[in-house]
Amino acid sequence: MNAYEKLEAHFTKISDLGHISAIVNWDESAMMPAGGGAARSRAMATLNVISHDLAVAPEIGALLAECSELELSAWQQANVRIIRRNFDRAGCLSSDFVREQTEAVMASEQAWRVSRAQNDWPTMMPHLKRVVSLARSEAAQRASKTGLAPYDAMLDLYEPGMRADRLDALFEPLKRELPDLVTAIIEQQSQTPLLPLGNEFDVAAQRALGLTVMEAMGFDFDHGRLDTSHHPFCGGVPEDVRLTTRYNSDDFLQSLFAVIHETGHAMYEQGRPKSWLSQPVSEALSMGTHESQSLLMEMQACRSLDFVKFAGPIIAEAFGGSASDPAWSIDNLYRHVTQVKRGFIRVDADEATYPLHVILRYELEKSLLEGTLEVEDLPAAWDEKMNAYLGLSTAGDFENGVLQDVHWPAGLIGYFPTYTLGAMMAAQLFAAARKAIPDVSAQISCGEFSVLVAWLRAHVHHLGSSVSADDLLRSATGETLTPEPFLRHLKSRYLGE
Amino acid sequence: MNAYEKLEAHFTKISDLGHISAIVNWDESAMMPAGGGAARSRAMATLNVISHDLAVAPEIGALLAECSELELSAWQQANVRIIRRNFDRAGCLSSDFVREQTEAVMASEQAWRVSRAQNDWPTMMPHLKRVVSLARSEAAQRASKTGLAPYDAMLDLYEPGMRADRLDALFEPLKRELPDLVTAIIEQQSQTPLLPLGNEFDVAAQRALGLTVMEAMGFDFDHGRLDTSHHPFCGGVPEDVRLTTRYNSDDFLQSLFAVIHETGHAMYEQGRPKSWLSQPVSEALSMGTHESQSLLMEMQACRSLDFVKFAGPIIAEAFGGSASDPAWSIDNLYRHVTQVKRGFIRVDADEATYPLHVILRYELEKSLLEGTLEVEDLPAAWDEKMNAYLGLSTAGDFENGVLQDVHWPAGLIGYFPTYTLGAMMAAQLFAAARKAIPDVSAQISCGEFSVLVAWLRAHVHHLGSSVSADDLLRSATGETLTPEPFLRHLKSRYLGE
Repeated sequence: MNAYEKLEAHFTKISDLGHISAIVNWDESAMMPAGGGAARSRAMATLNVISHDLAVAPEIGALLAECSELELSAWQQANVRIIRRNFDRAGCLSSDFVREQTEAVMASEQAWRVSRAQNDWPTMMPHLKRVVSLARSEAAQRASKTGLAPYDAMLDLYEPGMRADRLDALFEPLKRELPDLVTAIIEQQSQTPLLPLGNEFDVAAQRALGLTVMEAMGFDFDHGRLDTSHHPFCGGVPEDVRLTTRYNSDDFLQSLFAVIHETGHAMYEQGRPKSWLSQPVSEALSMGTHESQSLLMEMQACRSLDFVKFAGPIIAEAFGGSASDPAWSIDNLYRHVTQVKRGFIRVDADEATYPLHVILRYELEKSLLEGTLEVEDLPAAWDEKMNAYLGLSTAGDFENGVLQDVHWPAGLIGYFPTYTLGAMMAAQLFAAARKAIPDVSAQISCGEFSVLVAWLRAHVHHLGSSVSADDLLRSATGETLTPEPFLRHLKSRYLGE
Repeated sequence: MNAYEKLEAHFTKISDLGHISAIVNWDESAMMPAGGGAARSRAMATLNVISHDLAVAPEIGALLAECSELELSAWQQANVRIIRRNFDRAGCLSSDFVREQTEAVMASEQAWRVSRAQNDWPTMMPHLKRVVSLARSEAAQRASKTGLAPYDAMLDLYEPGMRADRLDALFEPLKRELPDLVTAIIEQQSQTPLLPLGNEFDVAAQRALGLTVMEAMGFDFDHGRLDTSHHPFCGGVPEDVRLTTRYNSDDFLQSLFAVIHETGHAMYEQGRPKSWLSQPVSEALSMGTHESQSLLMEMQACRSLDFVKFAGPIIAEAFGGSASDPAWSIDNLYRHVTQVKRGFIRVDADEATYPLHVILRYELEKSLLEGTLEVEDLPAAWDEKMNAYLGLSTAGDFENGVLQDVHWPAGLIGYFPTYTLGAMMAAQLFAAARKAIPDVSAQISCGEFSVLVAWLRAHVHHLGSSVSADDLLRSATGETLTPEPFLRHLKSRYLGE
């Protein structure tokens, strides 16, 4: 075996342990009885240590050096590039630091679950201070090894190549235009009142509906399944994707659109380059790119009048809605799936207000990391921005304010922006797909996704991490990331412009 | 950390990987879509290699040597004893041999699935020859390291301390008495014809019935769950037991008694000594002891008139059987759960004919291993013994003969006897429990298992592997293993003697 082949063999082992870990993590969320938790945590910690030891093995460095002498194919070169990036990243932090941070984050996440439920900021604050202080230290260590600014060094973990100044430029038009746009949309939607759909929807029928839509979207059930968990997610491995949703007996739209969203993620996973699945180069390009695939399906393709034309009759049949009942008309269903509301909670937000939730978090976490904002002052800063962007006050309401997300308690700083990068990328990709497939509207209104999926396979899924996000977008859409298609989409869908 | 503590830490790691492996194996049988199989096999092989490397790590030998200098508690001493035994066993075979055997067994198991379905002995024979030849070599290697006879060295893997000459003595009365006993039982049962129960039993109702019975038996659902798989099994870990059954819409007794059987295994796992769960000494004593717990519940406690008195009304209600219909009477239900028939298939056999299936396999596999029987001659030898013990011919019928079990194609030689050791042990333990709990009959007829389970906890489950099977039985029943209670049980239940 030459050095490259040895690297591949080593990373196949790491991928194998990643497979095991993904299935066991899915099990923990979807299957495990509560009493299994303590033993499971210890078992997973042991597995993670073994995986980590493999990821930082010094021989990787030596093999990488030898690889520069070898003649490699373009994909092999890309694989070496990703391996080197991951290896350099893993080497930024000492084992002692990782252990200290892991313990702080575990304590902080546990405290968060209780504090959020009890609206208890004073108990949570010291945990968050510790986690933020460790994140500052992590960012400083990464910055000194990579030469990036501290926040950029963290952002780069989730969105390789993205930088804060570029984010600022990408987010600026959204920050400027969305508040007024949201006002205009809400004003316009208030003209036509929503007719309620009822409040009792059989869970088995919801599940069957989700499976029907997954089938239409092209999910491969020989390589994946649908289950239930507290928070919907897409887990597992490309060969066996584990998708979950949750069922609420008084609202079937929540489970249905969670299934569609997660199926968007799943299609990316199932479309990763087959002959490279054991190697890092096959992995998803970035968190933003992953989110673009879920949001393209959820927001672009399926919260559309086209999709409602397809799904409406299936939905009505599933829940015994009468065709002559105006509540079950296509128009009223479409109004349900496109309602815009200002709300406190990010995960419940519609596509027009969602970026404002993200920009708020991005600005605060950047200040936190750079030390221009302290954890003590976070609730006041949160409240100020909620007022400015969404006209809502969260004074004294920590549960619906600064305590609502697990990301910061979990030490994830630099992650939030990828949600809106994904939304922008989804709009840009979908606009390009519409040009490439002129009758995609008609196809979606028949539940026909295969041509759209084939386009995504060719332009996104099959590429894995072999190109940069900029190159991917340039090749798929003719330009690098821009907020214009997203804003055009909102104006077209919600204001008919 | 002293040497003993280091050993404990090392074996905690091995136990953690065993936890992960158990959950993933359960997933493969109960959850995984077929298309996930290839990637899963490779991932599991990687995990197994890591576990194996930990199990044969040379430092274990050094630490064991140091332990002899330390003052240890009785449980610590027992733990060291089991660790030494497992370490010695792991060292009997070279890595090269293990790899060769693993590959041969995998090919043989795959060939078996097809050959069995196609009744195709000629295709299977060369695979089985290779596996038997490797088993002979394995037995020889183990014999030379342990000083045991070759078959004993294999048997000892599954039933520590058991030897073939003792097996011969234990099985002799069964071999002598059972053929005539079976004839007498069948003759007697033919006097009262079975009334059929119908042939359409809702699967959801079968599942609910299984859960009700598991609950009554004391299964802890905070530390385990019930799912479906092709073959029922009890997997997972003591903190999270994964039990499965299979549902047949025309026969609810199959799923119900599979649930009861596996719950017997599960109660053993859930009852293992809590403070030792990460250590080898907490593990089940032997395969025979494990089977004694499933058979005690299935055969002794639940295929009894007492249990049918409890379960009969629940069963009738679950499937809409009328109390006035003689088919749903307690007497007819009891006849259904105690039917004795001569049949070809071991796994479908009743408790009276089952030992004859096992003795046949024990005799054949011992001859195979010792080289007094060759694989080519196996079908003829099988047919001869089937005629002698059960009066049935399997000439030309490999599917229902020599190809019915996966054990030999999987390289498991020395395993079959533990089924009947378990049946004997179950009868002996249950007889002792009846003496210790005079009203256990009345309790079972009310679905009250807690006193019986508490007795099993104290005399079996809580002991883990801290004692020998002989010591366990002597302490629980006053004597070491004997076939008499099992024969008495059969004569009492089936002939009223």
